[in-house]
Amino acid sequence: MHAPVSSPRHPAKRFARTAALWLVVATLLHASPALAEDAPAMLSQQHGNILWTLIAAILVMLMQAGFAMVECGFTRAKNAGNILMKNFVDFAAGSLVFFLVGYAFMFGADAGGFIGTSGFALAHVDPATEGGMWDLTFWFFQSVFAATAATIVSGGIAERTRFASYIIVSVLVTGIIYPVSGHWAWGGLAGNAGWLEGLGFADFAGSTVVHSVGGWVALAGAIVVGPRAGKYGPDGSVRAIPGHNIPLAALGVFILWFGWFGFNPGSTTTADGTIGYIAVNTSLAACAGTVTAMLTAWIRFGKPDASITMNGALAGLVGITAGCYELSPSGAIIVGIICGFVVVLSIEFLDKILKIDDPVGAVSVHGVCGAIGTLMVGLLAHPSYGGSTGLVYGGDASLLMVQALGVAVVFAWAFGMGLVVFRIVAAVAGLRVSPEEELKGLDITEHGSESYNGFQIFTVE
Amino acid sequence: MHAPVSSPRHPAKRFARTAALWLVVATLLHASPALAEDAPAMLSQQHGNILWTLIAAILVMLMQAGFAMVECGFTRAKNAGNILMKNFVDFAAGSLVFFLVGYAFMFGADAGGFIGTSGFALAHVDPATEGGMWDLTFWFFQSVFAATAATIVSGGIAERTRFASYIIVSVLVTGIIYPVSGHWAWGGLAGNAGWLEGLGFADFAGSTVVHSVGGWVALAGAIVVGPRAGKYGPDGSVRAIPGHNIPLAALGVFILWFGWFGFNPGSTTTADGTIGYIAVNTSLAACAGTVTAMLTAWIRFGKPDASITMNGALAGLVGITAGCYELSPSGAIIVGIICGFVVVLSIEFLDKILKIDDPVGAVSVHGVCGAIGTLMVGLLAHPSYGGSTGLVYGGDASLLMVQALGVAVVFAWAFGMGLVVFRIVAAVAGLRVSPEEELKGLDITEHGSESYNGFQIFTVE
Amino acid sequence: MHAPVSSPRHPAKRFARTAALWLVVATLLHASPALAEDAPAMLSQQHGNILWTLIAAILVMLMQAGFAMVECGFTRAKNAGNILMKNFVDFAAGSLVFFLVGYAFMFGADAGGFIGTSGFALAHVDPATEGGMWDLTFWFFQSVFAATAATIVSGGIAERTRFASYIIVSVLVTGIIYPVSGHWAWGGLAGNAGWLEGLGFADFAGSTVVHSVGGWVALAGAIVVGPRAGKYGPDGSVRAIPGHNIPLAALGVFILWFGWFGFNPGSTTTADGTIGYIAVNTSLAACAGTVTAMLTAWIRFGKPDASITMNGALAGLVGITAGCYELSPSGAIIVGIICGFVVVLSIEFLDKILKIDDPVGAVSVHGVCGAIGTLMVGLLAHPSYGGSTGLVYGGDASLLMVQALGVAVVFAWAFGMGLVVFRIVAAVAGLRVSPEEELKGLDITEHGSESYNGFQIFTVE
Repeated sequence: MHAPVSSPRHPAKRFARTAALWLVVATLLHASPALAEDAPAMLSQQHGNILWTLIAAILVMLMQAGFAMVECGFTRAKNAGNILMKNFVDFAAGSLVFFLVGYAFMFGADAGGFIGTSGFALAHVDPATEGGMWDLTFWFFQSVFAATAATIVSGGIAERTRFASYIIVSVLVTGIIYPVSGHWAWGGLAGNAGWLEGLGFADFAGSTVVHSVGGWVALAGAIVVGPRAGKYGPDGSVRAIPGHNIPLAALGVFILWFGWFGFNPGSTTTADGTIGYIAVNTSLAACAGTVTAMLTAWIRFGKPDASITMNGALAGLVGITAGCYELSPSGAIIVGIICGFVVVLSIEFLDKILKIDDPVGAVSVHGVCGAIGTLMVGLLAHPSYGGSTGLVYGGDASLLMVQALGVAVVFAWAFGMGLVVFRIVAAVAGLRVSPEEELKGLDITEHGSESYNGFQIFTVE
Repeated sequence: MHAPVSSPRHPAKRFARTAALWLVVATLLHASPALAEDAPAMLSQQHGNILWTLIAAILVMLMQAGFAMVECGFTRAKNAGNILMKNFVDFAAGSLVFFLVGYAFMFGADAGGFIGTSGFALAHVDPATEGGMWDLTFWFFQSVFAATAATIVSGGIAERTRFASYIIVSVLVTGIIYPVSGHWAWGGLAGNAGWLEGLGFADFAGSTVVHSVGGWVALAGAIVVGPRAGKYGPDGSVRAIPGHNIPLAALGVFILWFGWFGFNPGSTTTADGTIGYIAVNTSLAACAGTVTAMLTAWIRFGKPDASITMNGALAGLVGITAGCYELSPSGAIIVGIICGFVVVLSIEFLDKILKIDDPVGAVSVHGVCGAIGTLMVGLLAHPSYGGSTGLVYGGDASLLMVQALGVAVVFAWAFGMGLVVFRIVAAVAGLRVSPEEELKGLDITEHGSESYNGFQIFTVE
Repeated sequence: MHAPVSSPRHPAKRFARTAALWLVVATLLHASPALAEDAPAMLSQQHGNILWTLIAAILVMLMQAGFAMVECGFTRAKNAGNILMKNFVDFAAGSLVFFLVGYAFMFGADAGGFIGTSGFALAHVDPATEGGMWDLTFWFFQSVFAATAATIVSGGIAERTRFASYIIVSVLVTGIIYPVSGHWAWGGLAGNAGWLEGLGFADFAGSTVVHSVGGWVALAGAIVVGPRAGKYGPDGSVRAIPGHNIPLAALGVFILWFGWFGFNPGSTTTADGTIGYIAVNTSLAACAGTVTAMLTAWIRFGKPDASITMNGALAGLVGITAGCYELSPSGAIIVGIICGFVVVLSIEFLDKILKIDDPVGAVSVHGVCGAIGTLMVGLLAHPSYGGSTGLVYGGDASLLMVQALGVAVVFAWAFGMGLVVFRIVAAVAGLRVSPEEELKGLDITEHGSESYNGFQIFTVE
């Protein structure tokens, strides 16, 4: 005989209680992975993101070596140590300044869409939280991007700029110029969006935010500091001053190309599936830029010039940086071709027509190609990739117009602020070395030692 | 008083309804990780695979710099820019060709086990799918392997080959020669297996597929283009032409060694547990090759020669590339010892007996050691590691025979096609520079500029 | 009419049975990820740890190139090949010895807290298990740390030490000296803790275990082998012997800085959230060291010296290596400042007061700054980061005292054993080259070839 329905021992109730108990246990089992016998610990997406973002940042860090080798190889031996010192110290001092103020201006609580206002010295970070762990990783990633923008400047004003003055300029670049325009476009990465990205400006990894900023400040510097002695004759002649170590420059270009695979795919700051095709776009643009620049030089000058070809690789890389997420592989190739072609003409134009002495082509590679790459997103954004649709694929012109606005405004900001900073430093601290110092070489005059002791034939030219 | 059993309000029914509701909620909770309060998002294996494969590909990309520095350092200063240009452009043009056709020939839908026939310009890839994301990542990974095979060739024919002709050869290597034999052995990685892997041929990361192909094409080139002027006297004498920058070459060898940790462990294309021991094998083989080559040179020539020792590291690395997954650490050491020993004899044999001028030892390091490494899998595959059993551990000879077949067939293909390609290019475009150009140096004659302006003592030798 | 309660077909029972069936299915679904339609495979934490530890180890491997370039660039051209050979072979031979015995002494079953006693030639590893896969990955990671300690020594005794004798010393460093003190501090990483870590000694990535060991052995060597000819005059004068290739040295410093991002964050051997801030600390210390050393040199010597500035970066990096996990970013900056300042004084002190000839400053950078960095943990460990509390934040002096104990004991061990090893090798094999060999240069005398054939102006000085 069964217990009556009202009794707790009624079969249905007992069954239901057993079922309920089983249900609670099952829920607990699957709520707590560690308790489940068959569920080993998995890597969280959060830690995967930290892992990838850190690795990408490390690759970008090595680009400091790449820039140093390019700038050193493309200039003269008597100034080799000086350009290396500028590269070391703009990275070191710049990172410290970016830690103290730059990051806050770029990613802090937004004020009027113009500038960030919190996070100085990362004081807001709570390392006891997952969020804090991410903040610190994200700071490191952003710091090496800031350092990239800063170090572009040294190439444009190489071989005649006083070391101390350059460091002052560099600190102002990493501390103010770069972070402010960076806030306009990228503040939202930390939840504090600036005005430009609010309009839909798309610069995935920094053709404008990083490379153009560096290039336009370099332009301002090259104008204010003036050309190297002997570069332009009073008769209008233009004299080439060839680099002393092309193998070193070539190594530098390869290292930059390598580091760019952290720069572009790393800008997802997420370990997801898109990082692979972002690398494909990066590689194809670099290759297309290399080949196009080589052919352009071959046709124009009669031979496949090594320096121009190498700058073609960099041009393609700078160009694809804005749209590496939005474009298709074919689009990336087109960007590489355009930038590889334009960089050759731009270098010539700046040198021979405008008579602006840019020893390594920094303005053309980073400024001009950064602008082109940013505009290209408005044309070639492919709906199957990043999600936007550029003009070429049937999108409307709104993206292109926002891109153009961003390019123009950042040019005005970076070039304008660059002029201001360089003129102030020139007035206060002196910007250019004396003619005698320039002739002797900055290694001896600024740093007290040669770079190739007992090795280099010291030619005074 | 309770409600009657037939009533919905009967306690048992109410209990069962509650239980059912709880059950549905629990199921939904665990079906949707985002809803579960206690289940943070995890990194998928798929995205982990993309992450690792991309990182490995990036490391392999830097090997382009390694090869460039080795080839530059081991040849003369007057040709430094030329060898760098060849390295840049065989990578750039080669990647574009591999994108357009090479990848399709290697990994496309199989035709008769011989060649792939689909995937030109990656047109088949759907970026909106996880599969498409993987395809693009895999393309990038394979592209830097193709570039490795191509760039090996430039070393074997350095210092006397016309730049434009070399680029044509290189494009044919990345476009046809490399992909076809690559299809035979690796097509299955994309689900389109070729005939050779169908027989069980095991070349995990490419001792044969990549290194031997490059080495045998280099051999064909060195034979067709002929030795450098002054290398072999009419009296049978052999003159060494030492490299101009051993530190640069050493840097190149270190960079290659570094990149190889992407090349070998990356060939799992999976973020799994085996990538660690594959790196162990890679490292031990390189170390054993270094020490063995050094001792061999020390005994044969009386001093521990730097160039030979460095080539020993590369020999060990090439040798372990085929079996890095199948072998044990002890087996890897044995492979390194054998390759480190043989490479010294092979370099001597090619140079002094066969009088084939290979300025950097590319044929011996990549061709010969690639073959040895591939055969070693048939001998030393260890059952506790990759899963196969080599002869030494009690397996039968079938694996060894398949390895030998693969080595022989790929030699015939790569060397034969190499001869065809070099002879055609020589006939159509001219292959070798004139004696006067060779004497002046290819930097000036092919590229219109020196590599060490104001720095190098220009010696004509 | 319903079935009676006692019947299986009673509605409540049918309901409960359905519910129970659903419950069992749901439990099975979530117990077996592969069966769940909505649960793709995830990357396990274990494989994530292998992935990160391997990548970090690869970055550390490239530091071999960094050390080679620094040591080569900071010494004379006639000895360039010799220092490169020492760097190659101490890595190759050292790794093999670490495989055979060193790893076992360091991580094997503990004997008395002093030394490990199992795991020779990794014979204990079972590759068929996840544990075995980890063991092999961990071996590779530890091997490149051992190689770092070994290669520090070559810089301190450069330009006058016989090659074969150096290799013997190096093998004893990687085989015995490094592993024994390493066991004291790190044996617990493999579950076999040594006596020193049992007392709470905290050297997260090896300021003492790796860098000080290398530095103190280098000190012993520099003392036993004596100064280079012409370095110190009989009248008490000190002659600088400047490096021949500062760009190469600069490249080396950048590469070391890059690799350090594997060295420090990799020492978690876990893909977790802390790797990001460990990188932040590493970067800030390097930057602070760079700027401080530059300012110190500028003030002391009148100009911002390039070599000193670069050594400042390394000093900061060595200094933060012990506390990169325990310290906050501010603490890391302080460590960098202190080390960047002290390294300048230490280099001067060793050279001009003690008259110990250390061509690259290895003793000061690695020995002295390694000790400082280790002590700093006792002062600046920040409770919100690693978990310990240094004196400055209110902790007691116990941590500082353990740190001091470790620094002192490892100094006694490494320096003492270094003296023993160098004296024995000097007696048995000869340690120093002859004065004539030293004058001609070790490239010719030890290795039979020049490093810059047809390129260098051979100056005898």
